Amino acid sequence: MSKKACVFLAPGAEEMEFVIAVDVLRRGDVNVTVAGLPNANTVKCSRQVNIVPDCSLVEAAKKGPYDVLVLPGGLGGAQALSKSEEVGKLLKEQESAGRFIAAICAAPIALKAHGIGTGKNITSYPSVELQLTEGGSYIYKQDKVVVDSNIITSRGPGTAFDFALKLVDLLQGKDKASEVAKAMLLSY
Amino acid sequence: MSKKACVFLAPGAEEMEFVIAVDVLRRGDVNVTVAGLPNANTVKCSRQVNIVPDCSLVEAAKKGPYDVLVLPGGLGGAQALSKSEEVGKLLKEQESAGRFIAAICAAPIALKAHGIGTGKNITSYPSVELQLTEGGSYIYKQDKVVVDSNIITSRGPGTAFDFALKLVDLLQGKDKASEVAKAMLLSY
Repeated sequence: MSKKACVFLAPGAEEMEFVIAVDVLRRGDVNVTVAGLPNANTVKCSRQVNIVPDCSLVEAAKKGPYDVLVLPGGLGGAQALSKSEEVGKLLKEQESAGRFIAAICAAPIALKAHGIGTGKNITSYPSVELQLTEGGSYIYKQDKVVVDSNIITSRGPGTAFDFALKLVDLLQGKDKASEVAKAMLLSY
Repeated sequence: MSKKACVFLAPGAEEMEFVIAVDVLRRGDVNVTVAGLPNANTVKCSRQVNIVPDCSLVEAAKKGPYDVLVLPGGLGGAQALSKSEEVGKLLKEQESAGRFIAAICAAPIALKAHGIGTGKNITSYPSVELQLTEGGSYIYKQDKVVVDSNIITSRGPGTAFDFALKLVDLLQGKDKASEVAKAMLLSY
């Protein structure tokens, strides 16, 4: 059975981080669902690119479980993910089942807001480091991509390809990730 | 007066190349218009991401002239740009006025289709090299980004940040490009 990913798309999401995750996972033959918040309407991203989700988050949840839930960054998007009860519920189920949760840029603040991955090694966009480490919730790293068991985190637009290729590697193997990277004129 | 860019969005466009160009130019304080083909309806990109243009190409043309016209890749998108008479007309006006024209990945085939930049140094996605060099239309290079007077070309998703940052440099100066790169955790 093919691997499945759900990528959240909330108003204010960083469109490059969002699109790179979706595109690279689809190049890696992962079945990706783009889940819109608060519904299936067009979402205005952080730099005013308008993207239409595949369905609402509620509809996407019914199509689960997913091998990975992906949280793109962008401060507005990350705050919307932090406040969403439905996102919190899905993340908790995902963590309980030991399945992958991946967050980039500002999105790790949504992991903290929902009490996900506590005590684990993570990274993020530099500006939210203090917010994440306050209260000793996480061990903070500065690597481009940090994998700690089921939690994958990364830093920003400039590390979005590394982040997405790591997800392809974890779901489909290193050979597939290398093949996808090569076709994009990158290496992995 | 602020610099203006028009980024074409046709069905089958490579969504990462499209979004990185728009986002990075907007981070660089360039006024960007996303021009949809064949009209202002939602466009399905090469990996099924659905993006809503700001307006149709015809509407966008009325808001010109633009300091740069940007052609994202993706074979389907590039073929649509090659076949569009309106794109051909805009590119010819842009070239006559000596303003910038930028194409990445497969999109340089649209430059050839419309007789743009003939005899100049260019690059592209490797798979369309022969199509471009046939008939001696261009001098082909393998650099990540090639600038020959007003024509800027680049190779694929893995060079899309370099391409977009080069456009910010040409329109807004190197300091602005470096500042934008730094905020994305890249260097320029």
